[in-house]
Amino acid sequence: MLDNKEITIYDIASKLNISTATVSRALKDDPVVSKKTKKKVFDLAEQMGYRSNHFARNLRSQRTETIGVIVPRLNSYFMSTVIAGIESVANQAGYNLIISQSSESTDNEKMNAKTMFNNRVDGLLVSLAYDTDDLSHFDIFHKKNIPLIFFDRVSEHVHSSNILIDNRKAAYGVTSHLISQGCRKIAHITATSDSNVYVDRLAGYTHALADHSIAADKEYIIYSDLSQEAGAAAAQHILQMKHRPDAIFVANDNCAVGCMLALKQAGIRIPGDIAFAGFNNDPVSTVVEPNLTTINYPGYEMGETAARHLINHLNGNASMHIANTILLRSELIVRASSEKRR
Amino acid sequence: MLDNKEITIYDIASKLNISTATVSRALKDDPVVSKKTKKKVFDLAEQMGYRSNHFARNLRSQRTETIGVIVPRLNSYFMSTVIAGIESVANQAGYNLIISQSSESTDNEKMNAKTMFNNRVDGLLVSLAYDTDDLSHFDIFHKKNIPLIFFDRVSEHVHSSNILIDNRKAAYGVTSHLISQGCRKIAHITATSDSNVYVDRLAGYTHALADHSIAADKEYIIYSDLSQEAGAAAAQHILQMKHRPDAIFVANDNCAVGCMLALKQAGIRIPGDIAFAGFNNDPVSTVVEPNLTTINYPGYEMGETAARHLINHLNGNASMHIANTILLRSELIVRASSEKRR
Repeated sequence: MLDNKEITIYDIASKLNISTATVSRALKDDPVVSKKTKKKVFDLAEQMGYRSNHFARNLRSQRTETIGVIVPRLNSYFMSTVIAGIESVANQAGYNLIISQSSESTDNEKMNAKTMFNNRVDGLLVSLAYDTDDLSHFDIFHKKNIPLIFFDRVSEHVHSSNILIDNRKAAYGVTSHLISQGCRKIAHITATSDSNVYVDRLAGYTHALADHSIAADKEYIIYSDLSQEAGAAAAQHILQMKHRPDAIFVANDNCAVGCMLALKQAGIRIPGDIAFAGFNNDPVSTVVEPNLTTINYPGYEMGETAARHLINHLNGNASMHIANTILLRSELIVRASSEKRR
Repeated sequence: MLDNKEITIYDIASKLNISTATVSRALKDDPVVSKKTKKKVFDLAEQMGYRSNHFARNLRSQRTETIGVIVPRLNSYFMSTVIAGIESVANQAGYNLIISQSSESTDNEKMNAKTMFNNRVDGLLVSLAYDTDDLSHFDIFHKKNIPLIFFDRVSEHVHSSNILIDNRKAAYGVTSHLISQGCRKIAHITATSDSNVYVDRLAGYTHALADHSIAADKEYIIYSDLSQEAGAAAAQHILQMKHRPDAIFVANDNCAVGCMLALKQAGIRIPGDIAFAGFNNDPVSTVVEPNLTTINYPGYEMGETAARHLINHLNGNASMHIANTILLRSELIVRASSEKRR
């Protein structure tokens, strides 16, 4: 019985019949220890309720009580609510945030990462730039055992957790809803980016069409930077089309609103001529007329979850290795912009 | 003639007949040197074209190439454009930004200032929280000669420059415009804050009324947190009023939009029954129907100016002491929400 006794690395070492040095290295995720042994150590540590792990203790001695946050842009309602959620949890736990934006540039993201590293943040929360594919600029964090969590715009990485919504499922849902309103020529405005967010939304759109036996038309996939201005430009493009769509699913609300305003000005009725749906549930979706159907993206909860997960890890109460991906719920909000059959 | 020769502290000392140590201390703004002597040294240094000053050289040796930015909230279009402007200038000059938000709390602002100090930022740009009146948490920066500039929400401080618009003049202009449309019962929705921004806008509103011989009515000044929700709440308050206003000037666009939507839902015609004007020229002002009359607040230019001023100072090309306040231009944009006489 080990009930009230604090579990140490000696307990783990003796149970597994390996040296304490190996246990210590495994808990620090040292590459000299094999993955198999690491798994054994982690599983047993978890099972025995080993809490104050070496890694956390090691960090604690040099903590700055600062969490770094790198985001693509600070100019969206979604991102400001994520940051508010992070801050709420971080402040309660006695951490300060320092934030930087990559402005959608990998080069800036590299500089941001270096700045965060030099400022000796205790942990890092990152939403990736549009065009980031190589993650090597984050290696300095992994090497120093500084935990890193990706949120929203994520990437698979053995040392990091990802926190996101099921973008594919959400896009499948919104596209199916447009189909249920009688739409068959559904366009999708998305970003020129390999980011999971846009790739998955496009995949959800495509699969909903396929599942309803609607042929996909490449002309109906419009690439843009998803700004409000880009929405207005997309509207001009759509007005020139020979076969205009009868519905448009836009990968964010701001761009949807820009597109709607320009089409309305050209005399297009919404949803009569073209139904509309966006993504994010930005407040502007309830200002535009008609109000915009959208996906409620729980930004605040995402921020809270990311911060809590990071701080639990810093306190030795959770390991990055156990939960690799955390999926948050999103939901379809139907408003007048898509209700053709009301 | 000193044309091409680099001016040194020896030249200044010999001209003033004081020791080089005193010149050096004066340029470092050391408190042991009298204000009178400092002024003499600064004036002569300026006049002789002394560039690479001791202060700048001193800092350069320990530069982190990082500028800190503390803002009240990151959730507004205005603030995100200010940050974009700062970043554009900073990145070009090889500086990285780290940003934190006070969430309108002086206590958080104090922690943010400490974090920025511990991260050894080369300079600091600050827009103050609602309730900050004591600035002593910035003393650590002044003591270390780390330059600090306030923007938008500013405070008088002997060691700092302020960058802002003439809020009073802008509010005077927008109120006079509403009066020119035949409005006489003009309400003002503002923040419960002693910040220059809201105090000055209220003063501009009050003086415009007085200059047009309209009696001010305390009932028409409504205090809120200026969120969109607060705008909706203000609308309910206005609907209950015995003498409803015929125009409302709101201290920001988001709150104006929340108020307009709630009044519209209650059957109030805009501008027929109540004319509306906001402040900031947030993109939402062109989404709401009717489009919102507002003040174009040049956030991007404000960010650029603040960053340029700070970096010039860091490079020894400008002194904080010379330009104490920089006022940027703003302009009234008249849209349908206030055009009663069209």
